[in-house]
This record gives sequence, structure tokens and C-alpha cells, in this order.
Amino acid sequence: MDFKNRLKYYQNLTEEGLRRFLPPEDTYPPVIHQAMNYSLQAGGKRLRPVLLLAAGEWSGLMPEKLLPAAVGVECLHTYSLIHDDLPAMDNDDFRRGKPTNHKVFGEAIAILAGDALLTKAFELTAKTMELGIPAERVVRAIAELAVASGSEGLIAGQVVDLTSNEKKKDPEVLQYIHLNKTARLIRYSLIAGGILAGALEEEIEALDNYGRHLGLAFQMVDDLLDVIGDFTKIGKPVGSDEKNQKLTYVSLFGIDETRRQAEEEIAAAQNILKRYGERSSFFIELAEYILKRES
Amino acid sequence: MDFKNRLKYYQNLTEEGLRRFLPPEDTYPPVIHQAMNYSLQAGGKRLRPVLLLAAGEWSGLMPEKLLPAAVGVECLHTYSLIHDDLPAMDNDDFRRGKPTNHKVFGEAIAILAGDALLTKAFELTAKTMELGIPAERVVRAIAELAVASGSEGLIAGQVVDLTSNEKKKDPEVLQYIHLNKTARLIRYSLIAGGILAGALEEEIEALDNYGRHLGLAFQMVDDLLDVIGDFTKIGKPVGSDEKNQKLTYVSLFGIDETRRQAEEEIAAAQNILKRYGERSSFFIELAEYILKRES
Repeated sequence: MDFKNRLKYYQNLTEEGLRRFLPPEDTYPPVIHQAMNYSLQAGGKRLRPVLLLAAGEWSGLMPEKLLPAAVGVECLHTYSLIHDDLPAMDNDDFRRGKPTNHKVFGEAIAILAGDALLTKAFELTAKTMELGIPAERVVRAIAELAVASGSEGLIAGQVVDLTSNEKKKDPEVLQYIHLNKTARLIRYSLIAGGILAGALEEEIEALDNYGRHLGLAFQMVDDLLDVIGDFTKIGKPVGSDEKNQKLTYVSLFGIDETRRQAEEEIAAAQNILKRYGERSSFFIELAEYILKRES
Repeated sequence: MDFKNRLKYYQNLTEEGLRRFLPPEDTYPPVIHQAMNYSLQAGGKRLRPVLLLAAGEWSGLMPEKLLPAAVGVECLHTYSLIHDDLPAMDNDDFRRGKPTNHKVFGEAIAILAGDALLTKAFELTAKTMELGIPAERVVRAIAELAVASGSEGLIAGQVVDLTSNEKKKDPEVLQYIHLNKTARLIRYSLIAGGILAGALEEEIEALDNYGRHLGLAFQMVDDLLDVIGDFTKIGKPVGSDEKNQKLTYVSLFGIDETRRQAEEEIAAAQNILKRYGERSSFFIELAEYILKRES
């Protein structure tokens, strides 16, 4: 299978898992299940589940066995978006062209839908034991998920991000935010695939390092798109990050230097997995795809 | 050890666990760890961890082995209080005589502190594997925790509660709310102790049934205290539940009938565990204590 077909295959599997492992919208009480589903269906590239499934297959396990954990990490990612968009946080009305969860369901249900998706992430990761994954591996993956998304991981990144516009431009603060808000869950997705599939410790470490570089590059491209996207549309580099006085790679280093750093991170990511030979080809091409993506 | 000393012993162990398993307040970023700790230290009876530790000991395991899971369920309970108190939900300014989390730390940090405590609950439950609990049991407890607190458990109860004042007085709705908002996590605490300690399936079921009756009685006494508490203070039965037009046992059945039902639930709870003889004495006395509590 070439890169594009394999990507599509993992994405389709994820969509199927979302239908299979989330409660139908008419499950009582319906409003919470509609709200959960609304944001899960708001789409995106399903990058994190794709990484988890691919890392599992890279480690020798068929992706179907890890599907609940893959859907779980998408639930966790979606919870973080719903809570980040809340009026008390970034106060965003739109995400990916659709009204945000609280604009449709109200703040109370949006908070609870986020809570429910966070909770579901752990339930689904635990569910891999039913598919024959040894329990020790499942517990380890759950612990990794909790640490990656907890008060010294994803949430720490959001806390520092919330206050970053008041701070002077500090590259270390920027690095901290993105290592935690973006790279952390990407790293988790990769190592969870390895852990659950029974990879060697040195392989899990390689997946982790690949994820760290990929995650930072992903965020740099995000910051670039916030500027370039608007540039091609309205003819001048003013994006929502600048409006919100967000600390970004572009605001700190400028467009050219950010692009150079992104290319450097992508090359570093590729180098880590290249030494495993042919079986890494999906990850090598995925890194290229992350760099060149337009949305 | 008599009942009071044993209760105190479990409570002290929980306090020790809270100090040991939660990050110190100066852990970066400090504001989130201060906010988490603020609500964890707002006290209470530590009922859920006590139940978990006692159910573990009832099943033959020393309580120290289950301490991370016991602290975990207190984290989960505390998250639910922080989010319930938010302006978008019940909009409460005080809890147990102290300003609520969002009054002290602001809404954004309060939401994130709740998220972090929910996440920590799973991390700590997973941690029991390090103390020698077999991984299969740990995964099962984690799955039970996720289901009990998810969109068809605790969160479902909160969703229905949020809209209950608009509904006509329906005993089935009231039952649904309290089975999910209150009894569910109490049941989890009991069965988690049993599961992690390796109790027989029929023992786990008995703990579950005891918890169901205890949980309902606990809520009935709560509703009574909301009226009686104010009665002794201001001389007339007007409490916050009535002000908020909450559907309660007292508003539906009156004081005398609610008390009668609470006594009935307590007796039912006691009957379930009495047949296990002397080893159930703590649970028999705890049921009495729940019925007669004044706060």
C-alpha cells in the first residue's frame, strides 16, 4: 500500500471505530451524546489515532487490535479542543468552519461533553484488554495517557498558554507550551502504539523521539498556516494568533526562520526512524506530509 | 479497632495519600497545582476513599496497597464538585464554607483543575499495579471508574439534574439523578476495593448492592439536612435546594416520608452485608453513621 492509501486506511478505520465505540446519539440523556458526537464528527485529519495505529503496525500488531485505544486518543484530543474553545478560555465561536460546541449546546453541556470524552478515552484504552492485549501493557498505556494529558502535560501547556500573551516574548515559554499542548499527545499516540503492541524499549524510545520532533514541526506549520492562510486570502499577514496576541513561532522568529526550523524538525524526526529501514516508510512520508500540509 | 477509630484510620491514611500522590503546590505551573490542592483540602468526610479501603480490607487486602486508587476516587469526586459549582452549572459561590474554586482561581483555572483531577484519578488507579495488584484487576477497576463517571453515569446524572427544575415532579427522574450523581461513585468505590483485592464475583456484587442502598440513603439524608440544617438555624424549612428549585426527596415526599425511606435503604444495605458475619461490622456501623450524620 502506498502512503496515501495507507493513511486513508487508518483514517477510515478510525471513523469506523468512532461509530462502533461511542454511544449512539439517542442514548439517554441524548443531549450529552449529541454534543460529544458533534465535536467528534467535526472532522480533522485523525492524526493521533493514525499515529497510534501506525506505531502498532510498525511494532508488528494488526491495527484492528488497537482500535479502541486509537478512538480513545481522538476522544481525548477532542475534549481538549472543546474546553480550549470555552468562553472562559480562548472564547472561540468557530472551529474548522463549524460553530464551537458551546455555541451549539451551551456552556454547561460543552464542559460536560469534554469531561465525558476525557473519561471515554480511558474507558476505550482499557477496552484493548478485551481484544487480547496483555493487561500490563494496557495499564502502562493508561498511565502514559494520564501523565501526557495531566497537570504536568497537556493541561500545563494550556495553563501557560492562557497567560502567555501577558509575558514578554520568551522562546523557552513558547517551547514549553508546544511541547505540552501539541507534542505531548502526539508522542503519547506513538508510544502507546508501541507499548500496546509489545515493542522493545529502544523502539518505544525511538517512537517517542520521532513524536517530539514531529509534534514541534506540526505546531510550527500550524503557526505558519495561521499567517499564510490569511495572507493568500486577505493579502496581508494578519491571523487569529496575532489578533489574540498569542505567542507563536512566527511572532517570535518570523516566517522564514519558522519554516527553516520546521524543516529541521522534520529531518530530525525522519532520521530517528530511518535506521529501522523499510518498515518506517510510512512515518518518513508522514513527516513530509505534515510539513507540506495546507490545512 | 472500634468503628470510630477505624473510620479515623482510613481517613488519616487518605490524608497521607493526598500528600504523597498529588504534586506539591510549587510544581510548574504552580497555579494549577494550587487550585487542585485547594479543593482537595476543602475537606469532607473522605467517604469514597474510606469505602474503597474498607472494601479492600473486607476482601482481605491491607489498605496501604489500595491507597493510590483511594486517593484517585477522591480526586474524581473533587473534580465533579468543582465543575458542578461553575457559573455555567449550579453557579455556587461557597462550598463547605469556603469560596468555590472558580471564585478563588477564576473560571479557566477551575475548569482545568477539574480536568486535571479527573485525569489524575485514572493515573492513580493505574499506579496500584506498582504496588503488586495484578494488572487484570487494575484494568477492570479503571474501566469501572470510567463507566461510573462517564456520560451514562455521573455525568448523565448531572445533565438530567441541570434540567430537572424545568420538569414536573417525577420520582423516576429523581431516582435517576441520584442513582447516577451520588450512588454511582459510592458503588464504584466499594466494588473497586473488592476487584483490586481479588474478591469473589458474588462478594463484588454484594458490595455493589450495599453501595446502591447506601448511596440513595446518603442523598436522602443530604436532602433532609438541606432543610433541617436551615430549620434549626433560621427556624423555617427553606434551604438552597428549594431556592434553586431543585428536585429533591424532601420536595417530592416531605420530611417524614424521606426519613422513612432513608431508614429503609439503610436497613436494606445492612442486610446485604450482614450475612458475611463479623467481618462486615464496619459497614453495618457505617450505614448507621450515614443515617445519623449531621453534616
